[in-house]
Amino acid sequence: MRTLRLTVAYDGTAFHGWQIQPGVRTVQGELEEALKALLEDPEVRVAGAGRTDAGVHARGQVASFTTPSTLPAKALVPLLGHRLPPDVRVRRAAEAPAGFHARHSARARRYAYRMIEGEDVLLERYAWSWGRPLPVERLDRLTRRLERDDDFAAFQGAGSPAGSTRCHVRRARWMRLHGGARFDVVADRFLYHMVRNVVGTVLGLAADPDGEARLDAIVAGRDRRRAGRTAPPHGLCLEHVAYGAPA
Amino acid sequence: MRTLRLTVAYDGTAFHGWQIQPGVRTVQGELEEALKALLEDPEVRVAGAGRTDAGVHARGQVASFTTPSTLPAKALVPLLGHRLPPDVRVRRAAEAPAGFHARHSARARRYAYRMIEGEDVLLERYAWSWGRPLPVERLDRLTRRLERDDDFAAFQGAGSPAGSTRCHVRRARWMRLHGGARFDVVADRFLYHMVRNVVGTVLGLAADPDGEARLDAIVAGRDRRRAGRTAPPHGLCLEHVAYGAPA
Repeated sequence: MRTLRLTVAYDGTAFHGWQIQPGVRTVQGELEEALKALLEDPEVRVAGAGRTDAGVHARGQVASFTTPSTLPAKALVPLLGHRLPPDVRVRRAAEAPAGFHARHSARARRYAYRMIEGEDVLLERYAWSWGRPLPVERLDRLTRRLERDDDFAAFQGAGSPAGSTRCHVRRARWMRLHGGARFDVVADRFLYHMVRNVVGTVLGLAADPDGEARLDAIVAGRDRRRAGRTAPPHGLCLEHVAYGAPA
Repeated sequence: MRTLRLTVAYDGTAFHGWQIQPGVRTVQGELEEALKALLEDPEVRVAGAGRTDAGVHARGQVASFTTPSTLPAKALVPLLGHRLPPDVRVRRAAEAPAGFHARHSARARRYAYRMIEGEDVLLERYAWSWGRPLPVERLDRLTRRLERDDDFAAFQGAGSPAGSTRCHVRRARWMRLHGGARFDVVADRFLYHMVRNVVGTVLGLAADPDGEARLDAIVAGRDRRRAGRTAPPHGLCLEHVAYGAPA
């Protein structure tokens, strides 16, 4: 059995997320269908580094699978390109060491959350339209406080599986872009809805002079009900997954 | 009868262009349906400043219509917002002077053609992916030669209606953007497929040291067969239409 690794990009708009579910269109489902047909291997199962939600996009999702097929890895990109719908793209395919697993082997994930201040038909498919000026410097000061190894249960969405809520957030910064802003966040792992809950929370705190203290209290409280709203999925994109030595 | 003016944005991906045609989805068709129902006026007909092709987007299309309805112009934006599909947006609505016509009254149109050098799932819905570096400075030197009042029949697509092929191109410039480039072009009027034919032609000439002379000969020849390929529609966007004094 060989282990292969794919770098996958998708426009999440028309998907019910990454994870395969019966009766709905998912990225994992489309990818497995294409691989089964191409490799003539009905047993193939892909694992994804990040289980992105419905409507969330990816430019650097990583998927792994094992197969007895001898098809060269390089041939996978064009051959999958023919079989996949236009909103999923395999950008790279490579041999991986035995035992490599896209999710378990990952050391860090980077997500971007994009926002625009006004309306723009060419941007709002991939950005949340806020409708008024964004206090980018203030948002940046708030999220930098989250750059630490801590229990982030306060930002975990309802319905999450039980388990550790500890994450090492390595970077959580905002930058101003033409007409909007982007929030870049890197961590070893993310909880369910975590990025969207952080974005919604800091937007709610930005106008509050005690925002820093309230944000610290929200994290310390480990109670989702104290944090803010969940930002919509279409602004979020899984940009990159890092393996090997910690990023 | 009142005359009203709308500024309209749309994602052209799922439309067969602006102009109403039986049996297919068009922007003009969607807009007229929404207006007929909203104004209870089955006779309403909208005119558009630019008859964008299938797949072409708009951020600043202008549409005009006359109606006996007394509905305030300001109410049109939210009310049309409820009735229109998510890929068409009315950005502004205002009273216009009697006799105003979105196409006939327009003095200038501005289009942008967006390109990216690589692949990017978040950009390629609205930009042509060229797959290699773009010689932006060279493209800019070439298109600046087109900034003049001339007969541009060489760039008119096949199947155009007979009529004048004279246009006053006021601006035709490229600027580098992160990972790609944008071509901005302003003229009093544009011929069918003109922007896309200019883009395809200068991309074909960019590597030719005699590109300037060949471009001049193409324009002087007034023969579509001498110009280059037609760039795909999804990179093109109608950005703005100017009225009143020449821009």
